[in-house]
This record gives sequence, structure tokens and C-alpha cells, in this order.
Amino acid sequence: MKMGKNVYEKSVDPATRAMLLEADRAGIETAWDRFEKQQPQCGFGQLGVCCRNCNMGPCRIDPFGEGADKGVCGATADIIVARNLLRMIAAGAAAHSDHARDAVLAFKKMAEGKAQSYQIKDEAKLNALASEYNISTEDRSPEEVAFDLANILLSEFGKQTGPIQFTRRAPAKRQKVWEAAGIDPRGVDREIVECMHRTHIGVDNDPVHILLHGLRTSISDGWGGSMIATDVQDVLFGTPTPVVSESNLGVLKEDEVNIIVHGHEPILSEMIVAAAEDPDMIALAKKMGAKGISVAGMCCTGNEVLMRHGVATAGNFLQQELAVITGAVEAMVVDVQCIMPALGNLSGCYHTKFISTSPKADFPGAVRMEYHEEKALETAREIIKTAVENYPNRDRARVNIPKEKSACMVGFSAEAILGALGGTPQPLIDAIVSGAVKGVGAVVGCNNPKVQHDYGHVNLVRELIKNDVLVVTTGCNAIACAKAGLLRPEAAKEAGSGLRAVCESLGVPPVLHMGSCVDISRILVLAAALANHLGVDISDLPAAGAAPEWMSEKAVSIGAYVVASGVYTVLGTVPPVLGSSEVTNVLTKGVGGVVGATFAVEPDPFKAADLMIDHIQEKRKGLGLKS
Amino acid sequence: MKMGKNVYEKSVDPATRAMLLEADRAGIETAWDRFEKQQPQCGFGQLGVCCRNCNMGPCRIDPFGEGADKGVCGATADIIVARNLLRMIAAGAAAHSDHARDAVLAFKKMAEGKAQSYQIKDEAKLNALASEYNISTEDRSPEEVAFDLANILLSEFGKQTGPIQFTRRAPAKRQKVWEAAGIDPRGVDREIVECMHRTHIGVDNDPVHILLHGLRTSISDGWGGSMIATDVQDVLFGTPTPVVSESNLGVLKEDEVNIIVHGHEPILSEMIVAAAEDPDMIALAKKMGAKGISVAGMCCTGNEVLMRHGVATAGNFLQQELAVITGAVEAMVVDVQCIMPALGNLSGCYHTKFISTSPKADFPGAVRMEYHEEKALETAREIIKTAVENYPNRDRARVNIPKEKSACMVGFSAEAILGALGGTPQPLIDAIVSGAVKGVGAVVGCNNPKVQHDYGHVNLVRELIKNDVLVVTTGCNAIACAKAGLLRPEAAKEAGSGLRAVCESLGVPPVLHMGSCVDISRILVLAAALANHLGVDISDLPAAGAAPEWMSEKAVSIGAYVVASGVYTVLGTVPPVLGSSEVTNVLTKGVGGVVGATFAVEPDPFKAADLMIDHIQEKRKGLGLKS
Repeated sequence: MKMGKNVYEKSVDPATRAMLLEADRAGIETAWDRFEKQQPQCGFGQLGVCCRNCNMGPCRIDPFGEGADKGVCGATADIIVARNLLRMIAAGAAAHSDHARDAVLAFKKMAEGKAQSYQIKDEAKLNALASEYNISTEDRSPEEVAFDLANILLSEFGKQTGPIQFTRRAPAKRQKVWEAAGIDPRGVDREIVECMHRTHIGVDNDPVHILLHGLRTSISDGWGGSMIATDVQDVLFGTPTPVVSESNLGVLKEDEVNIIVHGHEPILSEMIVAAAEDPDMIALAKKMGAKGISVAGMCCTGNEVLMRHGVATAGNFLQQELAVITGAVEAMVVDVQCIMPALGNLSGCYHTKFISTSPKADFPGAVRMEYHEEKALETAREIIKTAVENYPNRDRARVNIPKEKSACMVGFSAEAILGALGGTPQPLIDAIVSGAVKGVGAVVGCNNPKVQHDYGHVNLVRELIKNDVLVVTTGCNAIACAKAGLLRPEAAKEAGSGLRAVCESLGVPPVLHMGSCVDISRILVLAAALANHLGVDISDLPAAGAAPEWMSEKAVSIGAYVVASGVYTVLGTVPPVLGSSEVTNVLTKGVGGVVGATFAVEPDPFKAADLMIDHIQEKRKGLGLKS
Repeated sequence: MKMGKNVYEKSVDPATRAMLLEADRAGIETAWDRFEKQQPQCGFGQLGVCCRNCNMGPCRIDPFGEGADKGVCGATADIIVARNLLRMIAAGAAAHSDHARDAVLAFKKMAEGKAQSYQIKDEAKLNALASEYNISTEDRSPEEVAFDLANILLSEFGKQTGPIQFTRRAPAKRQKVWEAAGIDPRGVDREIVECMHRTHIGVDNDPVHILLHGLRTSISDGWGGSMIATDVQDVLFGTPTPVVSESNLGVLKEDEVNIIVHGHEPILSEMIVAAAEDPDMIALAKKMGAKGISVAGMCCTGNEVLMRHGVATAGNFLQQELAVITGAVEAMVVDVQCIMPALGNLSGCYHTKFISTSPKADFPGAVRMEYHEEKALETAREIIKTAVENYPNRDRARVNIPKEKSACMVGFSAEAILGALGGTPQPLIDAIVSGAVKGVGAVVGCNNPKVQHDYGHVNLVRELIKNDVLVVTTGCNAIACAKAGLLRPEAAKEAGSGLRAVCESLGVPPVLHMGSCVDISRILVLAAALANHLGVDISDLPAAGAAPEWMSEKAVSIGAYVVASGVYTVLGTVPPVLGSSEVTNVLTKGVGGVVGATFAVEPDPFKAADLMIDHIQEKRKGLGLKS
């Protein structure tokens, strides 16, 4: 285990460093160790020139031009790289949209009265959605409206012809861009299936043609699957409004039953949060010697309950193992996405119960407590009970909770932001026009042991706000920012004078936590609201995106739909495309001619900030604003 | 180019050997050369232990147990292999079902009167399908019925809840097996998307759980996507009935305009076949110095027009480049699937026009003549005209058409087989009960340069019929059998005495060509008819499947749904699973406890035949039949 780099090189986060030292001391392996054991990683795979799409292969192209320059079928590096990238987009879009589907199915069962644990929490949003779909709300119960809405939303996934409804939220100019490029999507399931068909041996072999379908698919995620997930969850669990909480591993309690909810969906975690407040459960916890029950979040399931209930977040993606290593977690409850199978073995080394709940996901070494909407609260209670009864198994000698935790203000849904501005984007636009706020930076994405944990996230965001760029954030970036104190209103002090004044007058942080990774749809809605208010396209806005530490295929889909929506996006880790000069050129240049935005790759967060700021200044110029 | 093995080692087919010699002489590269340039192929990929599902990777497991035993996320070899296999199934099912979708969309446009080139060719099948879906046919025009049927079929793809209709064609016992295992599928698009979600980082990490979803997805292909494709195409273009034709490169004409239709769909190729008979076109061909226009097929587009019109087939998958190398092909017209992008460069070395027609597929070096249902015949005419006008560019000095061609009798749809038997499977069952016919072998699948071309196909089939096993065939195996003369009624002489007598009394070959690769659904329908007639499950039948030279992801989906339907299946090339003993064990043993059938891998066709015959004998014993 002593093979690891110095912990200081692994993460900028003190709590993470402390737990990495503890892991080393206890001889426990983490993702960083496994990453080092994978070195050197396959160069063909890193360049994207390895193809396993048929059994004549595997094939690979020699990047030095000395060996094979084509696969058995004749596919070149350009074709192979493009196909691989399209499959990444397909998987990412599938993850988001399948999450959305489950949310809609739960919503439908609620409307039918078959899922008594759920209610309509935001009737205004229900009615707004109903109106968007021309569903009558007059003289009808919210459940009747919800039932119709659920059915029509469900039909969006399998919609065989376009357009899908939420794409109509984009500015008219943007819709025209998509239509002209032939990338206005049909239902997300159809687009994903077509990705898989096109990448089958002997189907689509033109890199540009392949990449255009990638954009189309990603739009059906961002303005389809992901947006449906966000909106239905808001109706079911409430649209987030500003709330304060805490973040980092220090939120775990020495003397309470610690339950971590980890993964990506709020469907079960909402019930766990509710069940943890049950007096019977708290009494049981006390009987077991604990002072109470403490639920903390992790990754995007964490973001969901953080945004809606102020439930503290224990950390982001690379901290999931470290939470167990504190020795103080009675249950790690997971649903789907970004859950390391390593948690199985790891929890076996501690008293932690690793509880898998999704019918779609199982893990070696997990206790299976499958969740179904009909008995959601009941299952949640069982899980809490399992965790509480596990408390006496905690080995106090092995408990090592880092002290670090940071306050944060979260809950900035698009509705909350517009609400804070007085119901109209005008004050923000005024601030942008005056130059107090130069523009908006959307910084999102995962962690990745290829780069120092949280270094890219925190430094990029700090650099942006210092330059008067308001930052909106989701996912693991949001948690990194929370831990770094950037989600406190006091962080306005770190901002340039213009942004600082705006934040201080509104009492908000300079970095606005907009939610989980599916909630990047909120950023799209906000961008559309700004563009529509100004009568311009999203690509005209002084805005830029970044994913400094991305690692998941979801991030590839997100990157694609953000660019397809007109937002220049800087990636901090290198996507597996450099083996094709054609694909690299299309992504960094050519696509700009189609959708008015491009990708860039820049691992250095300070240089990435410069790229974003330059882009924002250029867009300001385009709108006739002073730099 | 002289790196190739002796042509005799590359293929058993004389026409292929002749063209490989010609390719060598002309210094032209083929798939075999590219295959050799790929040697050694990546061992990690071959074992299935390479993971590229997130950007922390690529990761790979050391099969010797000396290096990394887990990916960065903690995924073991078992998890990685299972996930990779699930993605192969997803891609294969996607290819078939997306083909089906296009057939249904064309069918719908026909019903709406928007696709005048198409008509209803099989009204009886239309009405049978309508009745299956409870669509009224009384006092309604066929087009009205077709419109309703098209809509309901279209809704099957995106069906969010199960079951899908055609799975109800399976024996009741089989449906119960699927329900008990939780693998009775929902719409194929949903299952495919869930495959992609489950294989995203941190979702499904239990190999058995992953593989079960693979079975479910494959069923939604076999008894969903593929079956829809077959049935709709039968309604639109006619259900095949026995017809005689010819096969192999020798069908190309020295003195006519040769047009090859290649790929997988009949939608455009049906129109090309029709347009080639247009007197104006033939007159134009004569003006250009040709004696006429000759359309030949290749791969499954070839099988479609072969089955319905007796259009000669020029060859199977590995012969596509060789057709161009004859120097006598004016146009290679392609749609989707198994089309080598190498055809772009290759056709540039000859006068051949490489014409790409699908909106989903483009190829470097192709002439793009995109096909849309509304103007199908018009596009077909333009394509024919392009080919005809290319005839004067043929360089007679370079023309080298091999003389080999074989007669074949094809067109054995399930309906045609039952028709030949007098409308009931009873005569076949009687023959099986008497032991004249021992059982049925379904031999299907691709070509793969990893094994000698057509060697596995032809030898396995010969061995089966010699042992009184009636063979049903589709895809590239069917073409291999055609070229080897096994699809002639005279081939009954090569069969055992029992099978020979049955074939001679019916005047049919001992190897029945049932169609293209989506038409393996016909084999399922036939198997269901036999099982239902006997009141048993498909897994009780004396039947076995094989794919001796498979290479495509479609074949993986096919293998999975055939096994999931209860048919023991022998693969001739090794799937990328051997890196996981758990996955290998599940596929070759464990899955038998779930669906009553397993996979085996046996590259030697003689040993594979033994495995199949042993299995058939065991099933005969189970039914109380003498061996």
C-alpha cells in the first residue's frame, strides 16, 4: 500500500488527506492505489484507437504510423475514435434518462395512489409542467393532473419522432440551429439505440456524421432525460430554495448512527431522510447507545437531499471509500451510478453495512434491500433499522473522523435564482451589462485520480470569481466548492469587487449550487431564460462551462449537450480522442461552425479560467458590452 | 501484401481463393491482410478484461494474477467481462431493432399513402398480425388496418412496461421461465438503454445480475425487434416461398451492368430490384454497351432479395471486397451493418461506385444517395442510372470474374415450411418421433478471418445432415451453404438415409434457408410451433444452435436470445469472456438452471457437430424417443 504518492499530491482537501494517511496506516487500498497499480494505462485506449466492436478484433491503430493503420473492417483511427466517443455519449445519456424514467414511474405510481410514501410537494411546478403539455388543470385534483403528466412524460422516452417538448424551452434561435444541423432530437431512448446501431460494425463510418448524432443524442439527454428527472423530482420532493448546511467528512458524528446515502437518485434517499426522523427509530438508536441518527449524503444522491433538506454532504466521488475508513459509518446506502464496487470488500474490513437498493444495480459484498415505490418508506425504515442495529458493532478504537467540515449555502434552483432576483433575470442582466458581473461560468463534473483531487475544481472556481465571473455549479464540483468554503455568502470576499458587491447585496455566495449532475438541466433553463430575456441565442451569452476533473460517461454526454446548446466548454482531463486528428479538430474547431461553441482541453485550472474569461470577454464584445 | 497465408488456408471457397490470388497479384489489401497486420491482437481485449467505461481508465486486469486485479473503481475481471458482454448484446439488439423500426416507419408511411413505392404484398399476414393485436379488420381497407398496426408496432419499441406482444408467441412454459427469472422484457429500446445505464461506472457490478439483464435484452430483440422486422417486411414485400437461384461471385455478369446490394435491409433493395427491370433502364444499359442489368445480393440485404425474388447472391461477409476486385461491379449499393469501410478506398482503385444510402450510415469514399421512403423508387432509379452510366468505365483488362456459382433453393419462411408440410408441423414431428429425422440444427452467423472462411459453416452443416439432423440456416451461413451446394434438393444425397428420404419425398434440400440474420425470428416461430404442437417447452425439443464463424455484436444478441429461448448453442469463435471464470461458468453451465440451455465454444466444426448431436440425443431421450 505504500506505493502511493504523498497524500499531499493526491488531494487538496485536508479531510481527504487525513483519511488517506489512515488508509495507508490500516493497509487499506483506495482508488488512488488501484489507479497506481493500473500504470501504465493502455496508450491505445487513452488515445481512443482501440476497437472492440466486433469479434474480428480487438483492433488498434498504431499511433506512430508504423503498424496497423486500419482495423480488420478497414476502420481508421478517425472512425474508431468517433465510434468510441459516441458509445460514451450513449452510456452517459442512458444513465441520466434511465434515472429520469424511474422518477417518472414513481411519480405515476404516486398519482395512481400506489406509492403512498410520495406526495406532490410543488403544485405550482406541477401546474406549470401541465400547462407546457396542454394538460388541463381546471377542476381536477393534482393527482389527476399528475397522472396525465406522468403518462405524457413517460411517452417522451420512447417518442419515435421529434421534437421532444422540453427542447422547446431553448431559445427559438437555438432550435433553428438544431433543425438546420439535423440534430433536433427524438425521444432519448431512440437516439441512444441509434448510437448503438450506428457504432455496430459496418454501419456509420463517417466521423462527422457520427459526432453529429452524438450531439443529437446528448440534446435528448440535457433537454430531455436530465430535464425530466429534475422537473419531476422537484414536483415530488419540492423545488430547492436556499438552505444552509455543512460539508466534508467532518459531518459524520462520533456519537450518532451515521448513515450515508450515496449514488444519484432522491427517490429512496428522500424516504431515508424522513424515516431517520421517526421517533421510534431515534429511540432505538438511543437504546443502542447512540445519541441519535445522522444522515449524510455523498455524490449526487447527497446533492439531492442537500439541496432540498440541507442534509449535510460527507464528500464527493473520491471520498466514498474514505467515509468507510472513518470507521464511523453504520450504513452506506447506495442506488445507482458512480458507486465503487470496491465498497464491497472495503465495508467487509469495517463494521459498515454496504446496502444496495436499486433493482438495476448490485454489488459484490452488498446487503441487498431492494427498493420499490410501493413500499418506499417501509424499505427506508428497514434500512435505518439495519443501520441502527449495527451501531454496537462500531469499533471505537478504529474510529477516525476528520475534523474538517465547512458551512455552505445551497439550493439555487433556476426558480430560486430568479426568485432571489425578484422574479426576472433583469437584475443579473443589468449587472452583466454594467460589467460588475463579467459573465457566468458553469463548473461541473466528477473527480478523477488522474489529477489532484479537488485541485482543478477549487482553483478554477476561485479564479473565475476573482475575475467577476459568477459561477454556477453542480455535482462533485459543487461539493468541492462546499468543502472549500466557496458556497458561503462570505466567500464573496474572494470575488472581484463587482461580483462581490452583487453577492453581498443579495446575500448569496459567488458560487451557486444548482444541484446534482442531472440538474445541469437547471443551468440550461437559466441560460435559456437569460437568452430569451435578451432575445439572443445561448451561444451569444457571456458564459462558459468547465469540467475540471471529469471521469464518467455522463460527463461526456453533458459536455456534448452543453456545447450543442451553445456554451464553450473546457475539459480538465483528456478525453480519449487524441488518436484522431479529425475528431479532435471537429470537437475543438469544426463543431463551432455547426452549434456556435467548441470544446477545449486544459488540465491547468488557471489556464482553463483564462480560456473561459477570454471567451466571456469575446462574447461581451459581441453583445456590445465593455470588457 | 505478400504477408498473407496461403489462400488455401484462408477460405474453403474456390471463388474466394481465386479472388484472393487476384488481390495479391493486384497488390490490393483485403480484410485478411488487415487481420494479419493486427497480429498479435490485444490479449486483454480478447479475454474481455479491458474496461474503457470511464475516464479514470482504461483499466485492465492481469490475467496472470501478477499485476492489477481490479480497475480503479474496484471492478474485478468478472465485472468487467460481464459489463463488456452486456454492451455487446445492447449493440446487437440495437442494430436489429433499429432496422425493425425503419421497416415499421416505412410501413406506416405506406399506410398513410406517403410512400407510394410500397404496397401491402401479404394481406393474409397483415390480417394475422392485426388479429394478434386485436385490431379490427372488418369493413376496413388493408391500409387502414396497416396504419393501426404500424402505430401499435411502433409503440412496442418504446414500451415502458412489459410484456411485449410477440413474446406471447413463445410456449406458455417458456413465458413462465422468463417471468420466474425476471427476464420477460419490456420494449427493446428501454432494455437497451438500461444495458447502457447498468454498465456505466458504478451501477451494476454483479456479473449474474448483469448477464440476466443481457438475456432480457436479447429476448426483446429476438421476440421483439428482429421479429417485428421480419413480419413487417413480409407484409410489405411478401412472405418468402421456395424459389431457386444461384450463389457466389460467378453470378456476376461479364456483359451486363452488375449492381450489388449489400447490407441488411430490404427497404431500398426491393426498389432497386424493381427499378432494374424498368425497360428505360435496360435500354440505357444497352446504349452503354451492356446486354442488360444484373442485380446480385451480398450479406443479408442479399438474403432478403434472394428469399423473396430469387435474386442471386454474390457471397457472404468476407466476399464484399472480393466482389469489387472482380473489376466487374458498376455499383456496390449499401445500407447498414457489416459494410466494411474499406470499400471506400477499395472502390477508388476500381471503377466501382460505392453508394451509401442510409441516413444512419456514411462511409469515407462513398457516393451518398440518401434514401427516404417517400421517394424510394425514384432514388432506386437514380442509383441504377448511376451504375448503368458507369458501365463504360469498366476496364475489361481488369475484369476477373470467378467461374464458380452454385444453384440453391431458398425461401423457407416458417409459413413456407409449415405449408410444405401440409399446414401442420405434424409430419415433421412424426419424422422426428420415428427417428428418420433426429432433430433440428439451427446454424447461423457471420464470417470471421480468425477462422478459415466457410470451413466451419460448411463442415458443421454437412456433419449434421449426415447424422439426420435437419438444418435451418440464415445469414452468412446460409450463403456459405448455398455456395457449397447444400441448398439444392440434390444435397439430400449427402444426408443420412432418414433425412434423405424425408427431403426427397418433399422435394426440399436438407438445409433450409430461412432468411437474413433478423429472420432468426423465423426459427423462433418454427421452434414455438413445434413446441406448442407437442405441448412442451422449446428447451425440450431435440434442437441445437450454432454460429461457427460469428463476429458481430448482433451475433452476441442472437446467441443470447436463442439460449434464453431454450436452445443449446455452440459458438465457433471465442467470445471475449475467458478472462472471467465466473462469466464463463455462468454461460456454459449456470444459465442452464435459469433458462434450460447453455452456450458451448468449439472451434472444430466436427466436434461442434458432435456436441449438437449429443444434445439432440439427450433431448430425444427426455421426450422418450429412441436415439
